[in-house]
Amino acid sequence: MPIHYPNGKPYQGGVQTTRQAATTYGGRGMTLEEELNDSNAYYLQAGMAVVHKKPTPIQIVKVDYPQRSQAVIREAYFKTPSTTDYNGVYQGYYLDFDAKETKNKQSFPLKNFHPHQVAHFKACLAQDGICFALIRFVTLKRLFVYPASALLEYWRAAQDDGRKSIPLTEIEANGFEIHPALQPLIPYLGAVDQLIEKRSHQHG
Amino acid sequence: MPIHYPNGKPYQGGVQTTRQAATTYGGRGMTLEEELNDSNAYYLQAGMAVVHKKPTPIQIVKVDYPQRSQAVIREAYFKTPSTTDYNGVYQGYYLDFDAKETKNKQSFPLKNFHPHQVAHFKACLAQDGICFALIRFVTLKRLFVYPASALLEYWRAAQDDGRKSIPLTEIEANGFEIHPALQPLIPYLGAVDQLIEKRSHQHG
Repeated sequence: MPIHYPNGKPYQGGVQTTRQAATTYGGRGMTLEEELNDSNAYYLQAGMAVVHKKPTPIQIVKVDYPQRSQAVIREAYFKTPSTTDYNGVYQGYYLDFDAKETKNKQSFPLKNFHPHQVAHFKACLAQDGICFALIRFVTLKRLFVYPASALLEYWRAAQDDGRKSIPLTEIEANGFEIHPALQPLIPYLGAVDQLIEKRSHQHG
Repeated sequence: MPIHYPNGKPYQGGVQTTRQAATTYGGRGMTLEEELNDSNAYYLQAGMAVVHKKPTPIQIVKVDYPQRSQAVIREAYFKTPSTTDYNGVYQGYYLDFDAKETKNKQSFPLKNFHPHQVAHFKACLAQDGICFALIRFVTLKRLFVYPASALLEYWRAAQDDGRKSIPLTEIEANGFEIHPALQPLIPYLGAVDQLIEKRSHQHG
């Protein structure tokens, strides 16, 4: 049985005992999170960016202290994160993003985003952070950096007209496609450069 | 018995059952972490900065799924963090810092910093992040933003000459003192402004 957060989102990190069935992509058998961790490790090692996934927030209730050995957490619960999963620094820019997948072929369901994540994006954009969703269309094998500014517009519009998803055509129009590589597996900084370039034109 | 990380650093976050004896400061009975969380919540609410403490990294081994109720973590261990505890964005700048306390009156022991934290500071500085240690001298009731660039110099020198601590006089000379307030309790952004100003002169 897969692990889920209280909000129903599957938990993907840190379990040693059983490896979950991975969403395969390009035949490598890694989850999106694993591919991103791998890519972030590459960028760090290459001195190109410092981006880490935040640990899953846990509410710890009971801890045992066996003599002469490590503390063991015996009762704890998953908490809903108050931010996105990834942040860091790239050439002086603050990066902030979440990674999401869908099996849909024509649109990305807005329910994949939680209100607290959208609020976090809004706050970070107000501080001039570089914020985006990294969206994978699993079936199509396509991957995009989709700017949080565009997401926020869509989110607001959805409150008014009840729309439930972002069409692929919109993500193609305002996002930046990433083409998988070997090193790093997900070369997202290229798309980030495009996002920064586009943003500077809009600011200017 | 207080909770400790594998590295011996006391664990301060998230335990519901027992409240640890707080390091009191200004008579408010809050830990440094609690005061910072409070200050970050203030800055977020005021639209001044988005800074969060990262969750404590946990290695989860066993999770129970009681029917019709929340998943319960039944076996997990504290992991050593690979980064500092706090990061975020402020007026386009990437902020990254750790908070440390000492009861010493004349110097700050270098052993409070772990090599992985120093390596993380170095990597973030190379990406033009604003990196610092927030250092409290508990007995003196004095609090400083001490730039990571100065810390790294001291750390390197310590490898050569075996020194074990940073003198208060050095922290006074190259750090920026914070004077506690009511809102926020720790108004560290003022010291961050000074750090950014000094850095821009050095770059120029």
